Amino acid sequence: MTRLALTDLDKQACDLLIDKAKKAKFDVSIDQIGNIFIRRQGKNSNLNPVLMGSHADSQPKGGRFDGVYGVLAGLEVMLSLNDNNVQTERSIDLAIWTNEEGTRFAPAMMGSAVFAKKMKLENALSCQDNNGVTVKEELERIGYAGSDDFSQYNPYASLELHIEQGPILEKHNNVIGIVTGSLGQKWYEIEFIGEASHAGTTPMNMRRDAGFGMARAMLKLHDLGMQECDMGGRITIGEVKLDPGSRNVIPGRAWFTLEIRHPNKQALEKMDKKIYDLMHHIGKTNKLDVLINKILSISPLNFDQKCISVVREVTRNLGYSHEDMISGAGHDSCYLNYVAPASMIFIPCVNGLSHNELEDITFEWSEAGAQVLAHSIVKLASHGFEI
Amino acid sequence: MTRLALTDLDKQACDLLIDKAKKAKFDVSIDQIGNIFIRRQGKNSNLNPVLMGSHADSQPKGGRFDGVYGVLAGLEVMLSLNDNNVQTERSIDLAIWTNEEGTRFAPAMMGSAVFAKKMKLENALSCQDNNGVTVKEELERIGYAGSDDFSQYNPYASLELHIEQGPILEKHNNVIGIVTGSLGQKWYEIEFIGEASHAGTTPMNMRRDAGFGMARAMLKLHDLGMQECDMGGRITIGEVKLDPGSRNVIPGRAWFTLEIRHPNKQALEKMDKKIYDLMHHIGKTNKLDVLINKILSISPLNFDQKCISVVREVTRNLGYSHEDMISGAGHDSCYLNYVAPASMIFIPCVNGLSHNELEDITFEWSEAGAQVLAHSIVKLASHGFEI
Repeated sequence: MTRLALTDLDKQACDLLIDKAKKAKFDVSIDQIGNIFIRRQGKNSNLNPVLMGSHADSQPKGGRFDGVYGVLAGLEVMLSLNDNNVQTERSIDLAIWTNEEGTRFAPAMMGSAVFAKKMKLENALSCQDNNGVTVKEELERIGYAGSDDFSQYNPYASLELHIEQGPILEKHNNVIGIVTGSLGQKWYEIEFIGEASHAGTTPMNMRRDAGFGMARAMLKLHDLGMQECDMGGRITIGEVKLDPGSRNVIPGRAWFTLEIRHPNKQALEKMDKKIYDLMHHIGKTNKLDVLINKILSISPLNFDQKCISVVREVTRNLGYSHEDMISGAGHDSCYLNYVAPASMIFIPCVNGLSHNELEDITFEWSEAGAQVLAHSIVKLASHGFEI
Repeated sequence: MTRLALTDLDKQACDLLIDKAKKAKFDVSIDQIGNIFIRRQGKNSNLNPVLMGSHADSQPKGGRFDGVYGVLAGLEVMLSLNDNNVQTERSIDLAIWTNEEGTRFAPAMMGSAVFAKKMKLENALSCQDNNGVTVKEELERIGYAGSDDFSQYNPYASLELHIEQGPILEKHNNVIGIVTGSLGQKWYEIEFIGEASHAGTTPMNMRRDAGFGMARAMLKLHDLGMQECDMGGRITIGEVKLDPGSRNVIPGRAWFTLEIRHPNKQALEKMDKKIYDLMHHIGKTNKLDVLINKILSISPLNFDQKCISVVREVTRNLGYSHEDMISGAGHDSCYLNYVAPASMIFIPCVNGLSHNELEDITFEWSEAGAQVLAHSIVKLASHGFEI
């Protein structure tokens, strides 16, 4: 599955969802960053709606469930309420958040960040992909540059159903993860600058090879990640590029992405400082210039206790095996947590694999997640947080 | 300068050269791999012709002189013979060899390799660039899939004028390099295969990160290159790629190019063996599979003593400062050496920079190289090797 944000395939997925929503007589709104809101009206339009949702975009060669499982389960919940003629007090909104993955346009969770006023709309719209195409251009091209205004929108509560994307639930034989918080994370782009020259004619000891500087940096960063491993820290280098990028030219520039995660705010900040020290030291000792660009910084966060309690009670009542857990991944709910009481529901995925073509779930897990979402949403939309 | 082989820009350069040749009433032939031969007829068509030439393609973000300097100087030599009504016994041929750089289509020196029957025509024609386009398709598209037959062609001697692409001549304040031989080289493509997974949810100690395996390999290879540095050995990693190539996905595959050079055949073979050992060891200790694909292997070579003597005598007679040297780079002449007595003439380049946009030469160096080429070619075409 390669459905990168704001590509033709992303548009197709959104078109399909909107088509299904309109056939079920739900209202559809689209805001300026392309977030889609599908509403099933409640009895009392004066009450704030209950929000659910996730994202429809994927990683390159990603899985078929990351994100879109939560969206489709949400739609199924709304259609089931129709089928069973259930009326809720509050309206129920299903959101599809734009560009959660951040792989084509960095940073990630762009739609929910703009929605939560944690990123300026103009800044998001002007983000470019590797070909210099902007978010604004692509939104207009695929017809998702909406104009609906959500600045006064105040959800009563927000729930997101998602696959765990890690190995823990399956290992513990639990079907439902009650997500109490999320790892903090920081994203960087780092570049070493040396001097490009001919590979055959420049002696090894007269080179300023940016590629070997990058390799040294990668290993030092790996060591730093391993030091924090037991405390839940993580370091990943997912993209690298050498310039000019020819097999018989010494690379004059080496660029790579870095992301770090940690459940503890102080430890995350300490890793951040260490990274700057390490990179500058490697630059200095290898006669390379170094550029460090921090493009995302999210603190570790705790989800809302009232939301967590509702999910836990529903899960218990339905009889599913479950555990509390911290999300290793960032999610749109990390931003939604700023605008409404929010939490998440996880189901397992096979072998913990995600962001991978082998990502998979079982029908049983899929149903369990949708049941917990349905009962939680109906409870919130009808009776609120009171148990 | 980015004039990659068989692109529209490469075609433009060749069109321009052929246009100038035809205006001067030279004969033009093109063979099946797109090598162009521009002939100035000698008095005696029964004698084998004297060959000179180089290439017109460049590296990505390469310089303005690598290759095309030798071609333009050769054309200037032929035009000057016209201007001065010089008649030579033997015909003089100027060749423009296809795809010397090998950066778009590997391996390098493709046109001269096919010409020297060291590479099969069909194999060359089926080489693909990164977009899956073949040499054959591009030759046909730009109109350089020729049909002239050079299978019975036997040059009397072959000379190539080129910039040094290294720092030695300038450092020694010499204007002419008399090239006695060339470093051997081997090219590889190496891939480590681990498992792609989500960067946030997979603990550091449960990963099979191909990128870190690559970083370890890069540093081990750098160490190996440094060990051979004083003996003239070199190691370069010019291109790297992580797959799937997303900042929040652990890379499941890491691919890179490697090229090694050495003036000593035994030492080159020892490096080759060491590379296989190192890569397999890193694969094993990091739970990664490893693929090694050797795509080019050229032994260190010695140019023809008679050719070298003619160039040296001419250089001395013209009064240019000079020295003998070994070419660090591979050149078409490394293949031409198999089909004719061959050698090369070097001029300095500023700061030894080549395969770089800063590549530069002076007018004085340029003229010196062309003078040595002109007098050597006329001597060979009129009097032969006898001094």
